[in-house]
Amino acid sequence: MTTAPRTPNPERTSPAQFEVLVPPPADGSTRARLGRLTLPHGVVETPQFMPVGTNATVKALDPHDIREVGATIILSNTYHLYLRPGHKRIEALGGLHKFMAWDGPILTDSGGFQVVSLGDLRKIDEGGVTFQSHIDGSYHRFTPELSMEVQESLGADIAVHFDQPVPPASTAASALAESTARSDRWALRSLQAHSRPDQALFGIIQGGRDPELRAESTRVIAGLPFDGICIGGLAGDETPTQREDTLDVVVNLLESDPRPRYLMGLGTPVDLLEAVHRGVDMFDCVLPARVARTGQLWVPGGRLNLRNARFVDDPRPVQEGCRCLLCTNFSRAYLAHLFRAEELLAYRLATCHNLTFTLDFMAEIRSALRTGTFTARLPELRSAASPSRSRALAVQSE
Amino acid sequence: MTTAPRTPNPERTSPAQFEVLVPPPADGSTRARLGRLTLPHGVVETPQFMPVGTNATVKALDPHDIREVGATIILSNTYHLYLRPGHKRIEALGGLHKFMAWDGPILTDSGGFQVVSLGDLRKIDEGGVTFQSHIDGSYHRFTPELSMEVQESLGADIAVHFDQPVPPASTAASALAESTARSDRWALRSLQAHSRPDQALFGIIQGGRDPELRAESTRVIAGLPFDGICIGGLAGDETPTQREDTLDVVVNLLESDPRPRYLMGLGTPVDLLEAVHRGVDMFDCVLPARVARTGQLWVPGGRLNLRNARFVDDPRPVQEGCRCLLCTNFSRAYLAHLFRAEELLAYRLATCHNLTFTLDFMAEIRSALRTGTFTARLPELRSAASPSRSRALAVQSE
Repeated sequence: MTTAPRTPNPERTSPAQFEVLVPPPADGSTRARLGRLTLPHGVVETPQFMPVGTNATVKALDPHDIREVGATIILSNTYHLYLRPGHKRIEALGGLHKFMAWDGPILTDSGGFQVVSLGDLRKIDEGGVTFQSHIDGSYHRFTPELSMEVQESLGADIAVHFDQPVPPASTAASALAESTARSDRWALRSLQAHSRPDQALFGIIQGGRDPELRAESTRVIAGLPFDGICIGGLAGDETPTQREDTLDVVVNLLESDPRPRYLMGLGTPVDLLEAVHRGVDMFDCVLPARVARTGQLWVPGGRLNLRNARFVDDPRPVQEGCRCLLCTNFSRAYLAHLFRAEELLAYRLATCHNLTFTLDFMAEIRSALRTGTFTARLPELRSAASPSRSRALAVQSE
Repeated sequence: MTTAPRTPNPERTSPAQFEVLVPPPADGSTRARLGRLTLPHGVVETPQFMPVGTNATVKALDPHDIREVGATIILSNTYHLYLRPGHKRIEALGGLHKFMAWDGPILTDSGGFQVVSLGDLRKIDEGGVTFQSHIDGSYHRFTPELSMEVQESLGADIAVHFDQPVPPASTAASALAESTARSDRWALRSLQAHSRPDQALFGIIQGGRDPELRAESTRVIAGLPFDGICIGGLAGDETPTQREDTLDVVVNLLESDPRPRYLMGLGTPVDLLEAVHRGVDMFDCVLPARVARTGQLWVPGGRLNLRNARFVDDPRPVQEGCRCLLCTNFSRAYLAHLFRAEELLAYRLATCHNLTFTLDFMAEIRSALRTGTFTARLPELRSAASPSRSRALAVQSE
């Protein structure tokens, strides 16, 4: 590439204003911090979790439900919306916010994760990724420039750079180095192609679990005028320890960086807690909603499988004291019946609960940070999280 | 049977108080009437349409949605709830109202239509109907007495007598006479078996399209101390003319009867209008919700098939001025996208619209009756109905 990176424009006011309200304590007991991210469509308190609205809808919910579960920002998928209904169509209809009737903040991913995950259906070269649609097999090509064009058409508050994540299965060192270097080069092209002034652009750090590659990618991405920093290539097939070691490499280097940090694709509440503890501000994951649709309901310290026979006579709410649409109106017995009868209402009620559980857990974390009790409350928060600690699942996108 | 029918108890206050607020005009231009039915769980203005909640849920909607579409009474299915989750289970959980979190009036059917519709899976004798479950093939036997027991356990505001409808396909005259006579005998047994004082019991007139059988069944049912009169065996394979001729036979005989009249299983808005015109007060049908889930949206004078390519760029609401969740928030293009992506939200939004359309149409009919303009406005109401007049569909239950 002969182009140089976009230089920070002193005239430019970032559309993503991030403020650290409570920094990590000086005693080094945690890197967790309380923050506030102000975006064109609203304010996001951090640490924060973003429900995923793949096809311009958080599966089974309407926008009122999304507000009610406590979401203040959602993620939507560039790859899916590009293929169907098409970004130009959404732009002509007034943009993604209007299309899906969600007037709060939205972040779009770049499509990188999806097209790289297509396996045999995609081919990567320096220019971009050629792939076949999972819907109809038609051929398409994503480049950093096209990803920016698509994301600008969609008009989310935050776009992210078109990167090349390493596939979740373990990857040879040489392939990892190559893909990380290419991803970093695509960061420049993404920045240069991006022009929409009312849309923030976040860069994505790659580098797998290799500390040197990860550190190098961190330095490259942090050296560019992005509005925020994503940590990619995790929430895959790594162990929690591998993930935490990698996070430490990244956050060590970002310690004095003023921008928000977003770990892509995580996870269970306890995974979120541990990542917050290591300095992460933002998350997204399909997991709470996806497992809800299979009848797995999250409760403090565990989960209930509503397909289990013991619930069909249980008059109690799924979670005593939960403020969600499910728990304030219906019994475990009723939800168990709906799942058995394959009634559509089951999927909505269960999704409302798991997202409320996740978002209320994040609110509890923020409350502990606000009062300076996060470190002291870590054991309690760990046992309140659900489900128990487990290997992360490769559920970044559906 | 050696038992005599329950005689009207002068001490008994019917749990279904029906009042005709505006009787049909003296000029005989219509038999339509405005009424009010007061039930244990609320007041139902008539003419009224009852959405169907087969499995203790109006498919895709929650109770708040049911209120929002304008429903004041819903129907639920005895056959389905008996098989799953079981009436004793629902009773132990506090009854159907609490189970499904709907605190308004409910009517349960008797199970007669479903078990008789099972074809090869059922065998009818004088005592009752033996049948196999459509879920797991297990054997069951419904009698008038069991139907009453099940309906009392469910605890709806209105139960109906266990009848033997004639299958929708045309039936030989002898079989029709036999089943009508048996159904009328089961009316007595239903009355004698029914004891719950806070639950109304409606009787069902059968008799197919044979004017003499229909008149005979009308005299039998109207002569018994039921709280309301159902008209069964229509909304099947008859033509509109056949249906109207049959309605005239029934309503001629019921003209001075003080009880509400409920035509079971109808229909499209224009079918409802014509039946109101002939003196019917109450209706139920799965049709508006069922066609909604296939992408057929009702609008004045017609319908939109949201799977049609012409809607994918259409920024307009499905129906300008409609007050429903769909039309006040989303475009035709968005709904078309949701149907293509098979997103769960599509089914809920479309159902909300078609039920709102149907219930607002009934409200418009009531408004015309209240102001004495029904006859004058009939042509306008006919053209506002949707879809255009067609043969009734056999959609009494799902």
